[in-house]
Amino acid sequence: MPLPQPDLPEPAHPEVDSMLSRKFGKEIANYFSVLLFNKLEPLVNSSTSIATARFADVTSIVGVDPFSRTEEDTIAEYNSSVYVPQIIFLGLDERSEGLVYKDHYKGVPWFAVDVTPKGSVTEECEKLIKKMTADGKEFSKGRMHLSLPAQEGFKRTCPPKDIAPAVQNPERPPCATRTGISNLCFPRTDPTVIMAVVSADGQRMLLGRQKRWPPYWYSTLAGFLEPAESVEEAVRREVWEESGVHLGRVVIHSTQPWPYPANLMIGAIGQAIPGGEDIHLGHDAELEDAKWFTAEELREALRVGTSGLGEEAGPEYKEGGLRVPPQTAIANQLMTAVVNGFASGTSMI
Amino acid sequence: MPLPQPDLPEPAHPEVDSMLSRKFGKEIANYFSVLLFNKLEPLVNSSTSIATARFADVTSIVGVDPFSRTEEDTIAEYNSSVYVPQIIFLGLDERSEGLVYKDHYKGVPWFAVDVTPKGSVTEECEKLIKKMTADGKEFSKGRMHLSLPAQEGFKRTCPPKDIAPAVQNPERPPCATRTGISNLCFPRTDPTVIMAVVSADGQRMLLGRQKRWPPYWYSTLAGFLEPAESVEEAVRREVWEESGVHLGRVVIHSTQPWPYPANLMIGAIGQAIPGGEDIHLGHDAELEDAKWFTAEELREALRVGTSGLGEEAGPEYKEGGLRVPPQTAIANQLMTAVVNGFASGTSMI
Repeated sequence: MPLPQPDLPEPAHPEVDSMLSRKFGKEIANYFSVLLFNKLEPLVNSSTSIATARFADVTSIVGVDPFSRTEEDTIAEYNSSVYVPQIIFLGLDERSEGLVYKDHYKGVPWFAVDVTPKGSVTEECEKLIKKMTADGKEFSKGRMHLSLPAQEGFKRTCPPKDIAPAVQNPERPPCATRTGISNLCFPRTDPTVIMAVVSADGQRMLLGRQKRWPPYWYSTLAGFLEPAESVEEAVRREVWEESGVHLGRVVIHSTQPWPYPANLMIGAIGQAIPGGEDIHLGHDAELEDAKWFTAEELREALRVGTSGLGEEAGPEYKEGGLRVPPQTAIANQLMTAVVNGFASGTSMI
Repeated sequence: MPLPQPDLPEPAHPEVDSMLSRKFGKEIANYFSVLLFNKLEPLVNSSTSIATARFADVTSIVGVDPFSRTEEDTIAEYNSSVYVPQIIFLGLDERSEGLVYKDHYKGVPWFAVDVTPKGSVTEECEKLIKKMTADGKEFSKGRMHLSLPAQEGFKRTCPPKDIAPAVQNPERPPCATRTGISNLCFPRTDPTVIMAVVSADGQRMLLGRQKRWPPYWYSTLAGFLEPAESVEEAVRREVWEESGVHLGRVVIHSTQPWPYPANLMIGAIGQAIPGGEDIHLGHDAELEDAKWFTAEELREALRVGTSGLGEEAGPEYKEGGLRVPPQTAIANQLMTAVVNGFASGTSMI
């Protein structure tokens, strides 16, 4: 674990001693950046600058060890009489290269913490709010409450005038939403990537399986795109996380919507870099197995082994052979495209 | 305007007389389907079946004419003393082909209406809620309030047991979120499509311009993906809406994230169908102009006319020549790819 480098900000509270510092080294938790919210309003320095706090500022509210318990323990020990302030991990600021975790992730972690005075933390939250707002910082009033709906509910508009009889001055204060931003809001669609991965020589395909799937059933890897990622980057990251394989070239093949709940599957072909084909399932716990398959195995599976997850394979399928998703699934379409030469221009041998 | 066909449900309230019926024909507004929400809780028939109402059920709350005023008038006449219940247009159910609007859109419109008793509509909302829940329907309790956060705020979990001392029966009721769905929630990313459109013969490219852009500056068309659309469908729809051009083949080229605010640009190449190249800007008001450009014009623009929107064109640029986005923009990359033969395998002539 390298120590913080000069590109890091100065630590604000060198006395912090939390799980985070125990885990990552005492010096490191001091660098964690925290955004504070009071009744959903963010703490700001001014209308254009968000204010940050240090992890040590919120330990009186979230505890020195907010992530020490496993998810299983947290669920088993659920107690509705104890108020648990919300903490959200926002991401890593990679501009600070000094902090490295698991030899792979780098940067300063950012968190959002709800410091709304509530339940057993009321007093501590009020104390922190007082401290944070003493020097001119403030919790920015939300704009939603000042606006009215337009365009059948898809847009919020902040009107410049209020003709309510009780209002003394009908002119309302300036609002940034009146210029530049149109405040349209569409239903959300979550982009996901799904990818047929081929070996560096283009002659084998990587498939994976989850524990709950029927025996011999494999499919292409898949996962959610993260904020600020391109599809190409998401494909490389997900394949590394799930299988340990390192990809180079990525081309996008086609897409398929899954509107329930709200997904868009973006189908791609990824090619392993030479020397990057070793499988390692330890980065996350998603797959039970991942394996390289030959063109022969794939062709046979696409011919006799296709079915939905809850269905039987076709009559020609022989127990022990590879099973894969049906033609209606983009996974099947990607496999078929690759076997037929989409990635390389010539069919797999 | 064709009359409702037999595949439509029976109208519930033939007496409705609203703007909608005036606009679309008196019979048609009767078919509009409405979902009701009370304090964000949806009206349901049972835990697996959502209940619908008719437009006539909510006219006492939203008025018979909720969309009669223009956005400009709505903003100008804003009155904070008048509570305006939220109405959201959800989409068209295209299985009902009898209803056609503007010779193009078809299906039964669905809306969501907030019937929370509030302000001047308190009484009418209470009346409607009483009527709707009289026969066993109910407003489904939200699950968010029953759950606790896990995984650094990215997941909500519904624990099966509550160890609070005041709770008599620690076993909590069954919850569908405990099986199958993991209730993970990631920051939102909105997929957008951006497309270089080529003519049916592959020799010209369609570009458009917005009014606020500098003179002679054009770019590729673009727009948001809608729920349940594939990228390929979104490309065809957006190009038709903005330019009137009908596309056939669509291939995806590459992607570029724009994390502020939360967009993913998905770059594609679309090819017009023979006879589908006529430009019509009347479907929406987004573009000031759209035009077909030759390979020669495009090559010259890519060589001397590239710049950011606020910047000057290069020194070799001659006033009146085509100006286009810089190399850092995916629009430029798409144009360059097409001119160099991405779509057809050979360069444009």
